Amino acid sequence: METVLNVKDKIRAVENFPKQGIIFRDITTALKDAETLKIMVDFLCEQFSDIKIDYIAGIESRGFIFGMPMAYRMNAGFIPVRKPNKLPAETYSQEYALEYGTDKIEIHKDAIPEGANVLVVDDLLATGGTAEAAAKLVRKAGGNLVGMAFLIELEGLHGREKLAGVPKIVSMLKY
Amino acid sequence: METVLNVKDKIRAVENFPKQGIIFRDITTALKDAETLKIMVDFLCEQFSDIKIDYIAGIESRGFIFGMPMAYRMNAGFIPVRKPNKLPAETYSQEYALEYGTDKIEIHKDAIPEGANVLVVDDLLATGGTAEAAAKLVRKAGGNLVGMAFLIELEGLHGREKLAGVPKIVSMLKY
Repeated sequence: METVLNVKDKIRAVENFPKQGIIFRDITTALKDAETLKIMVDFLCEQFSDIKIDYIAGIESRGFIFGMPMAYRMNAGFIPVRKPNKLPAETYSQEYALEYGTDKIEIHKDAIPEGANVLVVDDLLATGGTAEAAAKLVRKAGGNLVGMAFLIELEGLHGREKLAGVPKIVSMLKY
Repeated sequence: METVLNVKDKIRAVENFPKQGIIFRDITTALKDAETLKIMVDFLCEQFSDIKIDYIAGIESRGFIFGMPMAYRMNAGFIPVRKPNKLPAETYSQEYALEYGTDKIEIHKDAIPEGANVLVVDDLLATGGTAEAAAKLVRKAGGNLVGMAFLIELEGLHGREKLAGVPKIVSMLKY
């Protein structure tokens, strides 16, 4: 609990970014502190220490920031879930809703061996649209989605409700 | 040497991506292999084990992939160098040339304490335009640029020539 509060102290609140009325939780001030960086990565890893994780799927681009050191520490492979037209081989694609319009994310069709345990990682759980799309992609590619890890959860946006079928959802810092 | 060859075997060559005539070096096939992931990160870290690295600056977005586990392992802070309008606080901005037109990357003005040792990390050294821009940003923000680490270097594009003032430049895989 104290750990969580110490990390929260390192997250900078930037008002009116990316637009008027939004308080942006800026993780860069936490990442630049070596000790805090380690605490964040270790905390998220430890929540899944009871499950064999074969692959971490990180959502572009801040999911790469937490997903890669987690894969390194957990001896897992890393699978990037990317914006359209970034992955060079054949992909599955999943649309999700934005406030205005839609966007897409993609995963390589051959990214995951059938039935392998996959943990999805991103920095932020907000409305849950991206996370839900990533969950669908992991399953479409043959993965066994065992959980999702986020550094930050904006509880007022109820993103968890979109992730009803996910066995375990962890967020370190709740706002 | 054998290590390097084994990792090269895991990099997939995708022809005609992102456009006709280009051979794209696809790192996703290396990243999904947990052992290869570790070898790549450890190799890059070990090249700088004789220098005290205070911060790793990773260039969006594949520089995040290697930069973050390196920061984790080296007990350094992590500083994202990002595309325009992604960083929420005040930034320095640096333009660089593309094949057609220009692009920009940014760093937070308060990212680096004056004189701190900074290692810049990216997946690929090609023409060197992005790397040169990142070097300028690190220095503008007050950092002491001690080196640059890349997973892959496309030697035929002579990117190193743009990085003449950088004390140490390391790439693991040369094509």
